[in-house]
Amino acid sequence: MALPHASSFRRHALFLLCRSPSRFLFLSRSLSSSAAPGLDLTNPTYIVWGSNTGVGKTLVSAGLAASVLSPSSDDPFAFLYLKPVQTGFPCDSDARFVCQKVSALFRRHLNGSPAGLLASDHLLNASTAASRELLGGRPEQPDEAVEGDAASRGLGAYEETRIGNGERKGGDFRLVCKTLFGWKEAISPHLAVEREGMLVDDSSLRELLGRCLGSSLQGGGHGTKEAIWRVIETAGGVASPGPSGTLQCDLYRPFRLPCILVGDGRLGGISGTIAAYECLTFRGYDVVAIVLEDHSLSNGVSLQSYLRNRLPVLILPPVPQDPLNDLLDWFNESSKTFSSLKEILLSAHVKRIERLHDMPRKAGRLFWWPFTQHKLVPEKNVTVIDSRCGENFSIHKVKDNQEMLIPQFDACASWWTQGPDSILQIELAKDIGYSAARYGHVMFPENVYEPALQCAELLLEGVGKGWASRAYFSDNGSTAVEIALKMAFRKYMFDHEICAASPKFRLHGSCPELKVLALNGSYHGDTLGAMEAQAPSSYTSFIQQPWYSGRGLFLDAPECFISNGLWNLSVPDCLQSNLKPEDMRFSSCAELFCPSRDSSPIANNYATYISEKLCDLAGSSHSILVGALIIEPVIHGAGGMHMIDPLFQRALVRECQVRKIPIILDEVFTGFWRLGRESAAELLGCQPDVSCFAKLMTGGVVPLAATLTTESVFEAFKGDSKLMALLHGHSYSAHAIGCASAAKAVQWFKDPSTNANIDVERKILKELWDVELVHKISYLPAVKRVIALGTLFAVELKADGSDAGYASLYASSLVQKLRADGLYIRPLGNVIYLMCGPCTSPHFCSEQLHKLHQSICEFRKC
Amino acid sequence: MALPHASSFRRHALFLLCRSPSRFLFLSRSLSSSAAPGLDLTNPTYIVWGSNTGVGKTLVSAGLAASVLSPSSDDPFAFLYLKPVQTGFPCDSDARFVCQKVSALFRRHLNGSPAGLLASDHLLNASTAASRELLGGRPEQPDEAVEGDAASRGLGAYEETRIGNGERKGGDFRLVCKTLFGWKEAISPHLAVEREGMLVDDSSLRELLGRCLGSSLQGGGHGTKEAIWRVIETAGGVASPGPSGTLQCDLYRPFRLPCILVGDGRLGGISGTIAAYECLTFRGYDVVAIVLEDHSLSNGVSLQSYLRNRLPVLILPPVPQDPLNDLLDWFNESSKTFSSLKEILLSAHVKRIERLHDMPRKAGRLFWWPFTQHKLVPEKNVTVIDSRCGENFSIHKVKDNQEMLIPQFDACASWWTQGPDSILQIELAKDIGYSAARYGHVMFPENVYEPALQCAELLLEGVGKGWASRAYFSDNGSTAVEIALKMAFRKYMFDHEICAASPKFRLHGSCPELKVLALNGSYHGDTLGAMEAQAPSSYTSFIQQPWYSGRGLFLDAPECFISNGLWNLSVPDCLQSNLKPEDMRFSSCAELFCPSRDSSPIANNYATYISEKLCDLAGSSHSILVGALIIEPVIHGAGGMHMIDPLFQRALVRECQVRKIPIILDEVFTGFWRLGRESAAELLGCQPDVSCFAKLMTGGVVPLAATLTTESVFEAFKGDSKLMALLHGHSYSAHAIGCASAAKAVQWFKDPSTNANIDVERKILKELWDVELVHKISYLPAVKRVIALGTLFAVELKADGSDAGYASLYASSLVQKLRADGLYIRPLGNVIYLMCGPCTSPHFCSEQLHKLHQSICEFRKC
Repeated sequence: MALPHASSFRRHALFLLCRSPSRFLFLSRSLSSSAAPGLDLTNPTYIVWGSNTGVGKTLVSAGLAASVLSPSSDDPFAFLYLKPVQTGFPCDSDARFVCQKVSALFRRHLNGSPAGLLASDHLLNASTAASRELLGGRPEQPDEAVEGDAASRGLGAYEETRIGNGERKGGDFRLVCKTLFGWKEAISPHLAVEREGMLVDDSSLRELLGRCLGSSLQGGGHGTKEAIWRVIETAGGVASPGPSGTLQCDLYRPFRLPCILVGDGRLGGISGTIAAYECLTFRGYDVVAIVLEDHSLSNGVSLQSYLRNRLPVLILPPVPQDPLNDLLDWFNESSKTFSSLKEILLSAHVKRIERLHDMPRKAGRLFWWPFTQHKLVPEKNVTVIDSRCGENFSIHKVKDNQEMLIPQFDACASWWTQGPDSILQIELAKDIGYSAARYGHVMFPENVYEPALQCAELLLEGVGKGWASRAYFSDNGSTAVEIALKMAFRKYMFDHEICAASPKFRLHGSCPELKVLALNGSYHGDTLGAMEAQAPSSYTSFIQQPWYSGRGLFLDAPECFISNGLWNLSVPDCLQSNLKPEDMRFSSCAELFCPSRDSSPIANNYATYISEKLCDLAGSSHSILVGALIIEPVIHGAGGMHMIDPLFQRALVRECQVRKIPIILDEVFTGFWRLGRESAAELLGCQPDVSCFAKLMTGGVVPLAATLTTESVFEAFKGDSKLMALLHGHSYSAHAIGCASAAKAVQWFKDPSTNANIDVERKILKELWDVELVHKISYLPAVKRVIALGTLFAVELKADGSDAGYASLYASSLVQKLRADGLYIRPLGNVIYLMCGPCTSPHFCSEQLHKLHQSICEFRKC
Repeated sequence: MALPHASSFRRHALFLLCRSPSRFLFLSRSLSSSAAPGLDLTNPTYIVWGSNTGVGKTLVSAGLAASVLSPSSDDPFAFLYLKPVQTGFPCDSDARFVCQKVSALFRRHLNGSPAGLLASDHLLNASTAASRELLGGRPEQPDEAVEGDAASRGLGAYEETRIGNGERKGGDFRLVCKTLFGWKEAISPHLAVEREGMLVDDSSLRELLGRCLGSSLQGGGHGTKEAIWRVIETAGGVASPGPSGTLQCDLYRPFRLPCILVGDGRLGGISGTIAAYECLTFRGYDVVAIVLEDHSLSNGVSLQSYLRNRLPVLILPPVPQDPLNDLLDWFNESSKTFSSLKEILLSAHVKRIERLHDMPRKAGRLFWWPFTQHKLVPEKNVTVIDSRCGENFSIHKVKDNQEMLIPQFDACASWWTQGPDSILQIELAKDIGYSAARYGHVMFPENVYEPALQCAELLLEGVGKGWASRAYFSDNGSTAVEIALKMAFRKYMFDHEICAASPKFRLHGSCPELKVLALNGSYHGDTLGAMEAQAPSSYTSFIQQPWYSGRGLFLDAPECFISNGLWNLSVPDCLQSNLKPEDMRFSSCAELFCPSRDSSPIANNYATYISEKLCDLAGSSHSILVGALIIEPVIHGAGGMHMIDPLFQRALVRECQVRKIPIILDEVFTGFWRLGRESAAELLGCQPDVSCFAKLMTGGVVPLAATLTTESVFEAFKGDSKLMALLHGHSYSAHAIGCASAAKAVQWFKDPSTNANIDVERKILKELWDVELVHKISYLPAVKRVIALGTLFAVELKADGSDAGYASLYASSLVQKLRADGLYIRPLGNVIYLMCGPCTSPHFCSEQLHKLHQSICEFRKC
């Protein structure tokens, strides 16, 4: 890159500003609100926070910049300083301060070196009041840059300075300082916005910041790739509001840049510094160093000891209080500290990058991933997740030799657990931190503590409303199902008087064989009891679990899906008699769930079929009894996102109720708005005896499951002996952290003040997937069927033979393409799905769906 | 209570102080360091925190006191103001300030009312420098109390004032202000200690504070029970260090008093207030109200909006800056705000007490506790856990009509999960909060992220060192065991060429029947697969799990225990041949684990017995194969804390290794120092093929399990198809929060700088249970046997018939007695145990053991 002439800089910026300040205020709105743009990690990039206002953030930024831009350095570094939000502008301009001080220090240290520094100070946007001030009454400032050999333009929106002759081989050092938004009054930005206008919403600010971080420093004169340091300086303290009122620690969280925390050396400063440090770490930031001014109170010693040497605490000499002091001597005195800071930051940066590079190899060597054939996962396919922000992962990738952090939509919802947007995520973190500190985990049986009680209350008033009266806690869907089965069987034995005291207990001299009634293709978990309740499949083969026998009466079920823009019903042959084609087509999903179908001819077919199957089994042996019905309501998830005809499931429930066979709904996948209602039981219009919940219940952060039951199921376990009780439990039963997150998430999802998707009247989620686009996809020739319901969108690709089914790799290329497009897809064989959270904006969903549509179109082509 | 004469007050306090300041410095040391003394909740008790120094904590305390002590109140309240730590003393004395201002305000508002106020200001301890200052150069202070009708004594260590004539029926109002510790210099307390001495360790400070809170206010002249408000005012900001250097937010945590946070209304104050608020909540405190001075920056509005109206934010008028202003007008102007504050605090207090009272009833109605016969749990037996601090619960109890919070040692270690002391608990909360904010939970398969990788690294370098190379994550011990069984069976099939391709696959036309080799009395979890690996027991009956069949070859095992001061070996009859009595007695536990026993005659008996049992099974049918050995190493936990002869378990392992039967160690209970070594495999001296870990792995806060394996087990799952992979997984596999806590806990426990119990050289825990006392207990006539190993102390009470075994209620009275004594015991039938954490001090353990000893002695008597 050749060094451009100074004259080529965009000197007209100020003039534009003069004529039409409003032109600077244009901001495009990004709607994928919580995602940070891709972030180039190749060079050290830090964010500077203050533990209070006035603790010296700008001094630290300037000192660090001066240390990087030292004329004696071997390499001519570039340094980008960004001040996203500046109030008190232009009177106060941290960017100008940095520009001036670093320039002056550079000049001081030139010592005849041929090095040169090109320093500039940009303003991108200013409020009208600030612009006026800038043009009219610009206050006189001592401008060191004007002295000596520097070329200086006292513009305002754009100032540029050259120090030295720039004769050095390899080009000039470069300092670029930018103020992104300036307001006139020296008050909190959100108040300045109130008084002066120029409201900047969070995503616009992030987008501009991301662009500034991403842009290469034009005018850098290096033949080789620039070595750029980037520093963002925040305004006020860590939790000071930004322009929109969002706290800055939340505002900048999607970038999750490593932090420099400027501590407070004054009386009370230990407290302020620790509180600020924790405020950052409890938002998932990494603080790399704390720097603070010495006030002879040894605050640094206390901090170091409290932080157990987890991070360095650097001490700066006292800052002269004389306003006429140009601080250059102070900077000189501090140069060793800044040099240490620079080394610490550099080494942390290098270490981070190295670790990110090491991680896939180490993962491949140490992890044993579930449901994964390691032979099929080359190192390059391992995804390195640096963090999550709401619905998006932040993924490390090397792209065109750049170290990138890229947002990727968690379209598999991390095995269907995810629900939080970026706000709920931090709220959950807070409640979890509080619970961990208040309770850790405490013993549950015979005890009570607030989170468990609150969680039980909310579950019974929510997903259990109208039928359930008891909550039994465990750890995951599989254990919740094992517990449900034990409950249902006992209830069955109780109702049918199969107990130790009864002559029926040992039918024909041995225990009866209890079976479940269940559907082919359903799935209930991986522990043996849950496996036994599902029909034979890839998961249940002898080499997977030699103890599996399949203790069910498994029925084939009719299925629904969208194809060519219409909902279709696909019915097993045995159920087809008397059905007309019009009975099998539906214009909307709502029609499928319509209660009027209960009196349709097909309802009769269903009832007869179920009844016959139950009779057949009863006829085959007197010692075989069906002790429970277990179904995944509406959707078979792991089985490949198949939607079962709700009418059929209603018929199953009815036939079992008639026979006093307890009903278990496995809502592990479907619970908590997954399908657009708080529970799928509501959607189905059925009341179970037992229901299992997990996954989304805690908002998607920590394992917890609940099995809810009616009081009459509970009663079947009462007796005089402990041996009658349900002797099943896990160590962390009803652990406080899980219950606290569940309590928060359950309320958050259903509250219209926190979840804009809630239709309060109808107690449903708004339509999240653009219906037109859904239909369009259902017409694609590569597509066999489509499901769109609540937070779920699924599409089965047309495939035959080994290309179809769970182990198929048919969709691999599509998956890789989508991942490159920013969608973290994990297919179920030839079934691709997108799953958002209950609070995800419909706009965001449609954006993702567009990408999917595009990719499937292309997939067809190749 | 009659009103004593003023002269009866201990006026001599000052004179003692004059003569021997050191007498005031005596502090008894409590060794149960993290437990707060029992706390009387009957009356409102609050702690006042500052979001920074100088934000007006004392003004708020005084304003609140004045509001409570208003002459126009119906009831003559008492108000106790405590300032535990005061620096700048006696020049600054917040207690004196409160005393003077409240007195002056009371007088102002008398308006001819017959009410009287008795106000006193006490100093309990002062540094030598502060005492000298107090006696010598006491600075002149405007003393409003001297004016008017007040009786005043200008003492210093004790001042007393009476306002009004005290002629009102029902007695005087009372204000008692106490400074617990005063230092002269106006610096952080920990620095003052450095310079002036009078080091107060945390537990001494808490003990004195507890005593002050607990004491009734002598001199209160009410015939009925006093209505006392209690307020503790902290020093500096929330995270300012106390005298020992411990942050005050940590120092006062065991009390977990509800908080008033004094916010900061200045520029930057939003940030400081939010950070302080979070600093408190992330330590498990409840902030009930925020109060801040108005600085015309609308900080209150931002705070209110950020806190989503979760708590009230009250605004005080600007405080006059003139040092001569006596602030009485300001207090008047603020009286409405303070009155609101008082109402808010009172209502929060009442609500808390009501909820605590409601909880047992609600719990009994909504919960379904695991392993609990609800019929046997009357409401009065339900334990209300308000919080945990390290090894102790804080329990709500009504005692003598007082609402009490009482510390109770979690002796059941909350189903053996617990490990943290109070410091680690907060450290875990921090790491958990950070992980939740950084990751929430993210998808594990084919991915990598820091906590999962770090956790895997630490497990494989720790409990897996020397043998394991892969970590498979799941949610609890039961799932870890189900996974282990699947792994072991596959490995067995692989080694013995039982696979689809081999003719052996279908022996005699059907699949072989795979069994586990296991011990009678062992327990591996409650999901069906784990249950199948254990011998028939109460847990496995038909009414508990009709699908259980018991798929094991279950052997009887020899057992060890202490009885009459000696370790005894109890061997099943079939193993007794050739054994002499001296072979069955051991003077220490170490002898039992001595490798030299491998060549003893008994070793031979063991090997022969095992070998014969395996041959017998093989002879019975060709299609039955033993595909895995599974044992709980050393201790059968849920089976009743039985210690199995380690030599026998070594023999089992050896016999299986010879036959290429994979070895599974179920270390769910024993892992991570439970038994004094990081793993029980170490203690046993065996290398397994597969090991299961859970419980203590996360430090006892959140569910997570790991199944570790050798590389050769992993290899048995490699292949070209996904169907060869281990198709078992749970939604929250390797969830970030669990992995992060595990990473912290695993390191914390083994690091001598964080765990004083670690003997680094020998990689063992120091002896935690006083050996002499253990032997003494083993001699008691009520005691059948004793086990003391690592963090476990167990004793089996002599009992016969239905008094023995899991369902026995034999120990009920002992359990109730111990709970009343502060030990939360949960027995296994007639087996009582204490379980501490790896970091618990031996002194604390012995204290508990003493209580147990005492109770067992008494138990025998009744």
